[in-house]
Amino acid sequence: MNELIEFLRIPSISASPEHAPDVRRASEFVHDLLARAGFEHAAIIEDSGHPLVYADWLHAPGKPTLLAYGHYDVQPPDPLDEWISPPLEPVLRDGNIYARGAADDKGQLYILMEAARRVLRERGRLPLNLRFLIEGEEESGGEHIEEHVRAHPDELACDAALICDTAMFAPDLPTLTIGLRGIVYGEIHVEGARTDLHSGDYGGAAPNALEAAAQIVAALKDKDGHIRIPGLYDRVLKPSQAEIETWNRLPFNPDRYRETEIGSIDFAGEPEFPLFERLWARPTLEVHGIRGGFTGEGSKTVIPARSVTKISLRLVPDQRPAEVVAQLERAIAAAAPRGVKATFKLLSSAPASMVDPLNPFVQKAARAMQKVFGNETVYVRCGGSIPIVGLFAEKLHAPSVMMGFGLPDDNIHAPNEKMSIANIERGIDSLIAYFDLVAQP
Amino acid sequence: MNELIEFLRIPSISASPEHAPDVRRASEFVHDLLARAGFEHAAIIEDSGHPLVYADWLHAPGKPTLLAYGHYDVQPPDPLDEWISPPLEPVLRDGNIYARGAADDKGQLYILMEAARRVLRERGRLPLNLRFLIEGEEESGGEHIEEHVRAHPDELACDAALICDTAMFAPDLPTLTIGLRGIVYGEIHVEGARTDLHSGDYGGAAPNALEAAAQIVAALKDKDGHIRIPGLYDRVLKPSQAEIETWNRLPFNPDRYRETEIGSIDFAGEPEFPLFERLWARPTLEVHGIRGGFTGEGSKTVIPARSVTKISLRLVPDQRPAEVVAQLERAIAAAAPRGVKATFKLLSSAPASMVDPLNPFVQKAARAMQKVFGNETVYVRCGGSIPIVGLFAEKLHAPSVMMGFGLPDDNIHAPNEKMSIANIERGIDSLIAYFDLVAQP
Repeated sequence: MNELIEFLRIPSISASPEHAPDVRRASEFVHDLLARAGFEHAAIIEDSGHPLVYADWLHAPGKPTLLAYGHYDVQPPDPLDEWISPPLEPVLRDGNIYARGAADDKGQLYILMEAARRVLRERGRLPLNLRFLIEGEEESGGEHIEEHVRAHPDELACDAALICDTAMFAPDLPTLTIGLRGIVYGEIHVEGARTDLHSGDYGGAAPNALEAAAQIVAALKDKDGHIRIPGLYDRVLKPSQAEIETWNRLPFNPDRYRETEIGSIDFAGEPEFPLFERLWARPTLEVHGIRGGFTGEGSKTVIPARSVTKISLRLVPDQRPAEVVAQLERAIAAAAPRGVKATFKLLSSAPASMVDPLNPFVQKAARAMQKVFGNETVYVRCGGSIPIVGLFAEKLHAPSVMMGFGLPDDNIHAPNEKMSIANIERGIDSLIAYFDLVAQP
Repeated sequence: MNELIEFLRIPSISASPEHAPDVRRASEFVHDLLARAGFEHAAIIEDSGHPLVYADWLHAPGKPTLLAYGHYDVQPPDPLDEWISPPLEPVLRDGNIYARGAADDKGQLYILMEAARRVLRERGRLPLNLRFLIEGEEESGGEHIEEHVRAHPDELACDAALICDTAMFAPDLPTLTIGLRGIVYGEIHVEGARTDLHSGDYGGAAPNALEAAAQIVAALKDKDGHIRIPGLYDRVLKPSQAEIETWNRLPFNPDRYRETEIGSIDFAGEPEFPLFERLWARPTLEVHGIRGGFTGEGSKTVIPARSVTKISLRLVPDQRPAEVVAQLERAIAAAAPRGVKATFKLLSSAPASMVDPLNPFVQKAARAMQKVFGNETVYVRCGGSIPIVGLFAEKLHAPSVMMGFGLPDDNIHAPNEKMSIANIERGIDSLIAYFDLVAQP
């Protein structure tokens, strides 16, 4: 525990350039831990951006190889005044450890490393082959790991990837995440007049780039949550009946979820689809920000000449990002009001990922967790995107086993992030059981 | 001219608190000029905000009384690097004087004061009674003058108000502005979830306050410029056939106007109405800014919990601001998507103003300008709002005669503001001729 506390004390905030030395220090912590534990070829890889850490133990010929992934960087801790105890001074309280990164992802990365180290220490060897590939810019959208995986697939060859960066659906309910949504993120750029104009002098003649942005958004999605981009739903796969039945059995109170987690007077989204289907298996379109004009205090009667609207679509199987971008570009051009030019600037994209729950690496993970937690493992999807999962599938031909030991109320990306100490122990036990199960025929 | 240059050098930027002493200094300049010229009861009135300056000469019994209005404050000069010569160092160039405030409104206020002073100096008396009421917060939305007029209508009693704060339609074309649009300015506040949420985890369930703002804006106005607020057009008066014919005779090239003044690929606004009717006699709705979410560089996948949309409507005769606000509030509530609360917060309002072109004070102004400029005076409207005009009508029962000597390319509120030196002289001559005409039966 002291070692984890030391790890959590390093402010490895990858989004802040001034914390670059701390990020580097966290990479050294990971490297040194793995090297001291007996992992070989331990290396801090610095091509660009924050370093990757690699290490392996490959002395189990004939046994499967796992690629363990995690990240040692953390989100910024702001707003600081909402933390009960300071984010960089880990504190044990009520069976939890509180600190920035406790669950996302230092605590869970520590579970991965400690499980492997414990087996090596106690038995002198692992029952399988294990590679570590740990990154330091997951929270800042860095693409260093993607470049590295694309450039060195042979050095990362594996039978499955093992990721501890997700959460359990409920306490004591072992959970495997088998689906992730993809994403298309970009900006709608609208150009109207040459410069901002006065709404008294020009209102009725000059195009308004902010109003055009609103017209375009409203054309892309109706007020009942249906995306109106022609062709967008064509490739959307309905989840299997078995998967839907699994979701229906999850312990879940929609009203309490809405009141405690969302805090709105009603749900949004396509009303004809059940909630889990909307969250996990339906594409969505969200507006993240609309720049332009005047947003300060008081009144300014400006007709904005330019606007930039940040939007993203979450994608589901079998949507293809490039096709969605083309559909979106056509829809934006068609929706632009008279007098403006509207274009789409793509910032990033990733397809959705699905892992077959019948894959033996997934099945063994379910058994390992069930053994430790005493409850049957549930399979869920996640509405978010972990682009590395798609990349492991594409370049390494490896399914990703997403064993998460966080809890829904761990406050990741928020003040008072925590990790259950019991789950750290159960996580280590689950992984040790998993290594042994994977090694069995 | 040296005196005007001295006036223009004072940085009386009313919106900047650090320039309050300069604003005060400009009020003293106006006060001292009028007092030295022989005006009586000269006073700097300081109730709240920046000072008003009052002075009068009331020794023409039986003759009409005019209330001359202007403002001695100016817009901020930013962006400074786009000025050819510094905004606070007046320069004579190509027959113009370049400086912040040259046309809006120090130069035109100087025309008013100099015309009256010249008559007093040359004849020892004025042919009519004249009051000055000059304000110092026109450019910062101050309401000091409104409070003053409401509180002291008897001390401002007059037959007509005289305002030099508008522009001529074209060079050498004497112009009277006889209509102004009104305004309703406010904010649409949307509340969705308790806090900003992650679009991966909650997209499909949580309401998006920015998207709701876009849906509401698109519901209030369609992409062809028609306002969709029930009842909004009910009281809109069609301009008279005579007025429309006047507009049709104005020297105007719509393509050149669009290319040089607007700079957009097409006009906006209701296509079935002619351009001048859209600009001067039709209500409009504009979006000025939409606050909420993330508008910085890069990608942040936030579902915004709150948004604030600044909008305004320009009003025309006979729309009533309070009725429009009620219609708008109902339309916003009806347009709010599921899951959000949307409310309207009014910031300011003023009705439209019309002056009868057959009013004798207006007719005499037309004759005075025509005599000096040699061309027939045209009557136009202005799409903007000058709330003081409505107040003079309501509290003083006085029509406002808006004789403007600015030009369309004077760059008011922009870099390189200028005023034609010839128009300063012609403006003074026009006003002297006007005083004499008003004094005639």
